[in-house]
Amino acid sequence: MKARVTVMPKQTVLDPQGVAVRDAIHHLGLPAASEVRVGKFMEIDIDDAAAGDRAALEGRLHALCRDLLSNPVIEDYHLELDAR
Amino acid sequence: MKARVTVMPKQTVLDPQGVAVRDAIHHLGLPAASEVRVGKFMEIDIDDAAAGDRAALEGRLHALCRDLLSNPVIEDYHLELDAR
Repeated sequence: MKARVTVMPKQTVLDPQGVAVRDAIHHLGLPAASEVRVGKFMEIDIDDAAAGDRAALEGRLHALCRDLLSNPVIEDYHLELDAR
Repeated sequence: MKARVTVMPKQTVLDPQGVAVRDAIHHLGLPAASEVRVGKFMEIDIDDAAAGDRAALEGRLHALCRDLLSNPVIEDYHLELDAR
């Protein structure tokens, strides 16, 4: 099984890395880029045999996203769990 | 329009950040996680009126992904261009 986690700065939080990338994109000749936000993407391979029940696994992954993979004060996460 | 860029370390490249996250996940009680890879995710808002022709825009975005947003020696990127 594969879990994909996207972690992005909240819309209300200033994203200086995104601003820097946007300015660089303008500089490289694409002024149409109005906003850039930069986040993290994580791909977690999960051993199906050891994973057990899917609902329980999903609950655990959400807990991991909150506690380890994102900072809930300034970031939002999105979890996707694939069959493969 | 929205462009979404995912940048991941190539499969053949060692990803020490991913290894650290995998070990932390094991530690937090999910030993079924067999591999973790950590990459970047970027969301680029594009002003439709200023963007011009879609094919040309896509070409420009691919050039930006290669030149600015990823390091082609050790990373692969994936570009998605949305209607909205």
